[in-house]
Amino acid sequence: MSFFITNNFLLETKTARILYHEYAADMPIIDYHSHLSPKEISENIVFPNITRVWLNDDHYKWRAMRACGISEEFITGSASDEDKFRKWSEVVPQTLRNPLYHWTHLELKRYFGIEQYLNPETAGEIFGLTSELLNSKEYSVQSLLSKMNIEVVCTTDDPIDSLEYHKSVDKQSPGFKMLPTFRPDKAMDLSDPTRFKDYVYQLEKASGVTVSDLDSYMEALLTRHNDFHELGCRLSDHGLRQMEATDYTSGEVESAFTKLLSGTSLSSSEIQKLRSFLLYEFAKMDYQKGWIQQFHLGALRNNNRRLLSTLGPDTGFDSIGDFPQAESLSKFLNKLDSSDELSKTILYNLNPADNEVFATMVGNFNDGSVKAKMQWGSAWWFLDQLDGMEKQINTLSNMGLLSGFIGMITDSRSFMSFPRHEYFRRLLCNIIGKDVEKGLLPNDIGLLSKLVTDISYTNAKQYFKLG
Amino acid sequence: MSFFITNNFLLETKTARILYHEYAADMPIIDYHSHLSPKEISENIVFPNITRVWLNDDHYKWRAMRACGISEEFITGSASDEDKFRKWSEVVPQTLRNPLYHWTHLELKRYFGIEQYLNPETAGEIFGLTSELLNSKEYSVQSLLSKMNIEVVCTTDDPIDSLEYHKSVDKQSPGFKMLPTFRPDKAMDLSDPTRFKDYVYQLEKASGVTVSDLDSYMEALLTRHNDFHELGCRLSDHGLRQMEATDYTSGEVESAFTKLLSGTSLSSSEIQKLRSFLLYEFAKMDYQKGWIQQFHLGALRNNNRRLLSTLGPDTGFDSIGDFPQAESLSKFLNKLDSSDELSKTILYNLNPADNEVFATMVGNFNDGSVKAKMQWGSAWWFLDQLDGMEKQINTLSNMGLLSGFIGMITDSRSFMSFPRHEYFRRLLCNIIGKDVEKGLLPNDIGLLSKLVTDISYTNAKQYFKLG
Amino acid sequence: MSFFITNNFLLETKTARILYHEYAADMPIIDYHSHLSPKEISENIVFPNITRVWLNDDHYKWRAMRACGISEEFITGSASDEDKFRKWSEVVPQTLRNPLYHWTHLELKRYFGIEQYLNPETAGEIFGLTSELLNSKEYSVQSLLSKMNIEVVCTTDDPIDSLEYHKSVDKQSPGFKMLPTFRPDKAMDLSDPTRFKDYVYQLEKASGVTVSDLDSYMEALLTRHNDFHELGCRLSDHGLRQMEATDYTSGEVESAFTKLLSGTSLSSSEIQKLRSFLLYEFAKMDYQKGWIQQFHLGALRNNNRRLLSTLGPDTGFDSIGDFPQAESLSKFLNKLDSSDELSKTILYNLNPADNEVFATMVGNFNDGSVKAKMQWGSAWWFLDQLDGMEKQINTLSNMGLLSGFIGMITDSRSFMSFPRHEYFRRLLCNIIGKDVEKGLLPNDIGLLSKLVTDISYTNAKQYFKLG
Repeated sequence: MSFFITNNFLLETKTARILYHEYAADMPIIDYHSHLSPKEISENIVFPNITRVWLNDDHYKWRAMRACGISEEFITGSASDEDKFRKWSEVVPQTLRNPLYHWTHLELKRYFGIEQYLNPETAGEIFGLTSELLNSKEYSVQSLLSKMNIEVVCTTDDPIDSLEYHKSVDKQSPGFKMLPTFRPDKAMDLSDPTRFKDYVYQLEKASGVTVSDLDSYMEALLTRHNDFHELGCRLSDHGLRQMEATDYTSGEVESAFTKLLSGTSLSSSEIQKLRSFLLYEFAKMDYQKGWIQQFHLGALRNNNRRLLSTLGPDTGFDSIGDFPQAESLSKFLNKLDSSDELSKTILYNLNPADNEVFATMVGNFNDGSVKAKMQWGSAWWFLDQLDGMEKQINTLSNMGLLSGFIGMITDSRSFMSFPRHEYFRRLLCNIIGKDVEKGLLPNDIGLLSKLVTDISYTNAKQYFKLG
Repeated sequence: MSFFITNNFLLETKTARILYHEYAADMPIIDYHSHLSPKEISENIVFPNITRVWLNDDHYKWRAMRACGISEEFITGSASDEDKFRKWSEVVPQTLRNPLYHWTHLELKRYFGIEQYLNPETAGEIFGLTSELLNSKEYSVQSLLSKMNIEVVCTTDDPIDSLEYHKSVDKQSPGFKMLPTFRPDKAMDLSDPTRFKDYVYQLEKASGVTVSDLDSYMEALLTRHNDFHELGCRLSDHGLRQMEATDYTSGEVESAFTKLLSGTSLSSSEIQKLRSFLLYEFAKMDYQKGWIQQFHLGALRNNNRRLLSTLGPDTGFDSIGDFPQAESLSKFLNKLDSSDELSKTILYNLNPADNEVFATMVGNFNDGSVKAKMQWGSAWWFLDQLDGMEKQINTLSNMGLLSGFIGMITDSRSFMSFPRHEYFRRLLCNIIGKDVEKGLLPNDIGLLSKLVTDISYTNAKQYFKLG
Repeated sequence: MSFFITNNFLLETKTARILYHEYAADMPIIDYHSHLSPKEISENIVFPNITRVWLNDDHYKWRAMRACGISEEFITGSASDEDKFRKWSEVVPQTLRNPLYHWTHLELKRYFGIEQYLNPETAGEIFGLTSELLNSKEYSVQSLLSKMNIEVVCTTDDPIDSLEYHKSVDKQSPGFKMLPTFRPDKAMDLSDPTRFKDYVYQLEKASGVTVSDLDSYMEALLTRHNDFHELGCRLSDHGLRQMEATDYTSGEVESAFTKLLSGTSLSSSEIQKLRSFLLYEFAKMDYQKGWIQQFHLGALRNNNRRLLSTLGPDTGFDSIGDFPQAESLSKFLNKLDSSDELSKTILYNLNPADNEVFATMVGNFNDGSVKAKMQWGSAWWFLDQLDGMEKQINTLSNMGLLSGFIGMITDSRSFMSFPRHEYFRRLLCNIIGKDVEKGLLPNDIGLLSKLVTDISYTNAKQYFKLG
């Protein structure tokens, strides 16, 4: 049985093959949203084996393992790296039709040249081979990134982060740029006074600003915003259930802040107002500096209290929420636009039932000032798979302009996830190719190749103007 | 490179081609919902150039232009007609995969015989050729309609409209019927006492009824309803976020009305009650006269306050809402049905996430009294594209009866949008053809051609009994 | 014209044909959720004609008939069985593309060997032929089930049910097992004190427990839960709009219960709390006995008050609701999981807009204790058709593990609906086959046939461990 990931994987038509191989494949990658570790990149670490780089921290794989009845010992527990890998190899054949099945084999092939199906029979050999390869400078994390033709990678960072690793990488000039993203989710986590005070303490240290009231809190955050900017940061990001767009007075949010800082829990109404204030202020900072703001909306997180208490957040217990999105989105964006303070904006939705709401919402705030100012972001998280991306691309095509799309990101914690850009480009070319075959698009390679290279690289290059 | 809109555009199978060319293509058009200007039809105006008939008033194109970074000057502003057209020609190649790309070239071909791609290179030639053609009686608006085999076109009209243009067109007997539709959205706009009083004043003039309380307001509206009926109107229409179905007492709505008329703003609860009353009363008027009622549900309008203030409503700043729909729909329809006062009804949803709610809701109120009494309307607005219509047709097929569907409408302000009926018929035939090829339907042309001609024309003819 | 249901119906590729004919077709059926009548199975009744077994009680067909303008007389009324059948035969050609069209012809073929299209021309012949066949022991209901290779069928039963028919069938050993399912919807119907008291009275009779307060109510229900268990019941089921997960104190629910039992109506807040209590208690009973719990979420029932009043519930006036689902689901499952009392669980959604919410929610509570513990159930009711099942399978594949899926159920009141398992298996094989053709899956029949047989039979066998 021949290996299923061939040269023409996902490319069903002649047009798709031309578009991919002759145009899209060699474009550099601007990975403008990821969760890679700046420390590991800065230290250019070498992983002792594939479990460390591939299974540790990958909650997609963890969920699949749990669904197969694998005990936590072999997932996040104390089992040996090789035993964990062998358990994963049992799970792989059970992931047929899940993106993990494609990712697994595409990543083994691209990083290690392996053209074998991973399963219990091949696990030992593959573990050995990959460990051998990984134990060399050629497989250090910087090499892993360079191998994939990365031009820029943006990490996701808290305002309290010192950014020392970004500075260090900048000095090392590894052949790609690593830029921070300003993501103040914790600065907006107002649910626990103790946790908040701890955060404020760390922010004071990072900013050198003493926080005594809401004004000085904002000053401390702005100081960090400035620091991020100096290091080349041009993107912010927020993870929210819904856009926070409750009306408030300055008196209300000031007294709520003072109350929280004094250790008293806020009511949910106070929290909403203060969060709405903070989000709006962050948006104005972004506008002042010409940043691009991102919003990831709609996740329902930490559903499993029992396992959360032992494993912490981001360990595979999040899922898709069904919160109303349209009105608060409109209100938030409209408020900024009314005073002409709306930055370039990228909106990501987690619930695909909201696709059309998002695709059409962005269109309300394109004002002709800049091409594709408002972006509906690439299929996120659970939607980052063949169907999910096709749906996003089709809805964007039908209700907006595909041609202005800034395209794919890994949004990943894994140094081995960059073939997802290849995956995206292949499926994009395949969509175009099928349209041509059906007579829905002119068979004009000049026109179509521009579309494909724009979405793969050029649009992001021009939109972000990074580095 | 050959032109992509061929004789078999959208027709992928032999069955589809037979069904379209031999059965669907020549059916007349009953365009039972449009936003054409009765005045322009009555005056049978001639457009000096293509910008006037094709770009002015088309907020679909405006959104696309804004998304491409075109400034408002070339969209709604003071630039010359030819410059606006040239800007549009820059945008067209950027609309690949958007319905605008298909519409643009299909309309140029059907109205002007042009088989060129519109882009900056061809813009001058096309502007010249189309201007020349448009400047003749053969391209007057009545000619444009007749060219498309229109049997009936329904416009959308406010109760205060004098209907003078409908009377005039009726006298001119242009070869098609133009009928009004009773759309009292403004009669239900209770948010601003000043605007409402102004509306009441105009209604008094149109109806000859002095409005002093809720009773006389309803009498004035009924007078207009009667007037519309006399001119052949058989349809009403309402544009709403959600169905208004709040309980109320007659005392509550009477005093709310008096309060509003006296210039005092209503609370949101008062507004809901009074709107629910009005909607219910309109529905009963429709039932009394055997009209068909339409409801367009789910738009989130006027999101961009800044551009709204200069450009007004319906200029491209509306998008898809995510309001709950099922319960209020059920309550409203059930209330009418309980007293057997439920008219034939067409429900349109803007959010495709509601497709299945709508498709199954209509089934609750088919009572065997008439074939396909309750209709789930054709894919509306943002959904009026290949995917959106296919989804509507598939969901209707799976959860209702496709065979009773009354089919396509333009819902358009443009005199050049009638090829959308062709587009719809082609994709309908294509869906059927693919099913036959897969063995999902019997290969019985008699059976299938009846399905296609029923949906293209006959069902609407029998359902509306217009003229 | 050849008959469209051929040997390779729905099987478009060679791989699909191999998978279906050589692997899936002969698997036994575990129909773990149905609404068959235990009485009719126990009495092994013979139907005098096809109207009785096929049209009576089938509200899918009733809705289609009403949509075609057939009067109630021929649906639920007093017309003769043959006249009803003839009316249905008029409707069948109008159901093209609805699942009824496939079901109709597949069922006529599988049960009676008929390869004719049902329409007014063939109605008489088919009525005669089927009546003749039905009037024999070979077409008794037990024979109908055995013919379809049923291994287990689970009925849906109220706690007050005596289960006498289940005992009787068990003694008859008809070649399949018939097991009850504990569905206490009426025990949770708290909206009408009179109806509730009547229910309590029947529960007292069935359980032998006198109900004077909430404690004794729960004791009575537990007694029945025990009785169900003794008869082999291993599944519970609940039909709800949304999961009930309101917080409550024991004092609150006890006094609400006493109030209700005394004949006083409860407030909606009291109802929510008491229902949340009951649902949680049922879930704990299920966990104690190692049962599997099912939840059917999202129907909007009894929309047509007028016809409901004459025909009663479950007569074709239900539709798809759009209730928020994610947060209450998470809260309910999390509460049980926190104390490690969460049973194996199957969640069914009626609104396909919730597909992704459900597909990802189950993943939050797989804890590695057992393979595919949490299940997202097969496409339910309005979704039980080609598109609906494909979407469920695709979403499950993308966001969970298809390989652990326990597959299809009839969920039907009809003894002639078992070919739906064949239909499901065919479309499943077709999906796999198309993926192979596109190069998305390895062309490894060993791997793929295991997937197909697991989902058709083996997974359910191992998951339920029935009998």
